[in-house]
Amino acid sequence: MRNIKLTLEYDGTRFAGWQSQRTKKVPTIQATIEGALHQILQEQVKLVASGRTDAGVHAQEQVANFKTGSLLPLARMHEGMNALLPADISVVNIEEAAVDFHSRFHAKSKVYCYTILNRVHRSALLKDRAYFCRFPLKVSLMRQEAACLLGKHNFKAFQATAKKEKNPVKNITQVKIEKKGDCIRIYIQADGFLYNMVRNISGTLIDIGRGKFPQGSMKKILLSKDRKQAGVTAPACGLCLMKVKY
Amino acid sequence: MRNIKLTLEYDGTRFAGWQSQRTKKVPTIQATIEGALHQILQEQVKLVASGRTDAGVHAQEQVANFKTGSLLPLARMHEGMNALLPADISVVNIEEAAVDFHSRFHAKSKVYCYTILNRVHRSALLKDRAYFCRFPLKVSLMRQEAACLLGKHNFKAFQATAKKEKNPVKNITQVKIEKKGDCIRIYIQADGFLYNMVRNISGTLIDIGRGKFPQGSMKKILLSKDRKQAGVTAPACGLCLMKVKY
Repeated sequence: MRNIKLTLEYDGTRFAGWQSQRTKKVPTIQATIEGALHQILQEQVKLVASGRTDAGVHAQEQVANFKTGSLLPLARMHEGMNALLPADISVVNIEEAAVDFHSRFHAKSKVYCYTILNRVHRSALLKDRAYFCRFPLKVSLMRQEAACLLGKHNFKAFQATAKKEKNPVKNITQVKIEKKGDCIRIYIQADGFLYNMVRNISGTLIDIGRGKFPQGSMKKILLSKDRKQAGVTAPACGLCLMKVKY
Repeated sequence: MRNIKLTLEYDGTRFAGWQSQRTKKVPTIQATIEGALHQILQEQVKLVASGRTDAGVHAQEQVANFKTGSLLPLARMHEGMNALLPADISVVNIEEAAVDFHSRFHAKSKVYCYTILNRVHRSALLKDRAYFCRFPLKVSLMRQEAACLLGKHNFKAFQATAKKEKNPVKNITQVKIEKKGDCIRIYIQADGFLYNMVRNISGTLIDIGRGKFPQGSMKKILLSKDRKQAGVTAPACGLCLMKVKY
């Protein structure tokens, strides 16, 4: 069996997230790609991604792998997929991986970017690509408060309440907040993420930027391990999985 | 009568261009905005833009103006428009203009940007925002050949054959070709543009970047004043009106 590693780009707007949902008739990214592979390989394959992305979340470089008995050359598989897949999903790269390569278990770190459009009026060109926030945000304050997230911490305060992961301790190796024109971008790199973690951190940082929380709040929230202390979950459209490192 | 100046942003993908088409039932940007204004002002107004954009062409800052007898405050007009307009059109700015202000006649110069995605496989995130060219383009060659476009010239060679404008002499005051990652962006600023001029210049520059034309071709094409000498019209999706200066 060959183990094929795909690097995928997608616009998550019209999808109900990454994962196939057998019970509901909604388009998912996984099912769409598996469908294309079925046509190309004449074989049912199962795609494993580095992690699931939610409905509306985008990816610049998601990684997924699948096993196949097909001998089809990679180049033809690649061409075939980009010909069959809808315009909002594309295969950026395809390569042969080691037999035991697993996109999720072997991922060393991932980088997410959360984009905020911070101006008075909404943007047509960024409509599905950024969260539109009309209240002026203090980026210097956001940066200052975000600094405490760096390093190994229990991030339970930023985990979706409904989800319980065994290990809520993650290591954030980079937090960068950039401002370019009207856009504020929050980049977070970590060895793993809890469910909704980036969106909950971003929502909290937005509240901080608006002046809703006093100085030192981020640290307090983090230490509280209590989701109720943190800000709202920022909308999915602003989130993009940028890179998976192995 | 008040004369209101609008700065508009739009994603042209699903529109049949700027101009209202009374005979066909297709959505146009002009008609959509006039419709929203009709609801807000309870009055039929006529929007005049700095220039028409074609089907699929985007705008980061298009300027248009209209006259109205309404006394509605600008802030309420602005809020109302962004509430009523579809997500792919937004009003970035609204202001009171001099009574004689005319968005088209008074425009001193306009800046267009043509975006080319230059890599082997298509992009999901740029699907409607860039022209996908899989053949490697030599940007240095494109820059070198584009230099001759600067200044006052008869640009008939880059005018759509079906159209005949009285004055084919335009003054290009800036040509800039940027490469960032997989994207090549051609910025052109001029005091005016012939129909399809940026797309025809861009198509020719793409052919030059591919090595289809020998060195010195751009100058020859320009001097020939013959549309048949130039390259193909680059697709609309790559084009964006960036700014109108008064």
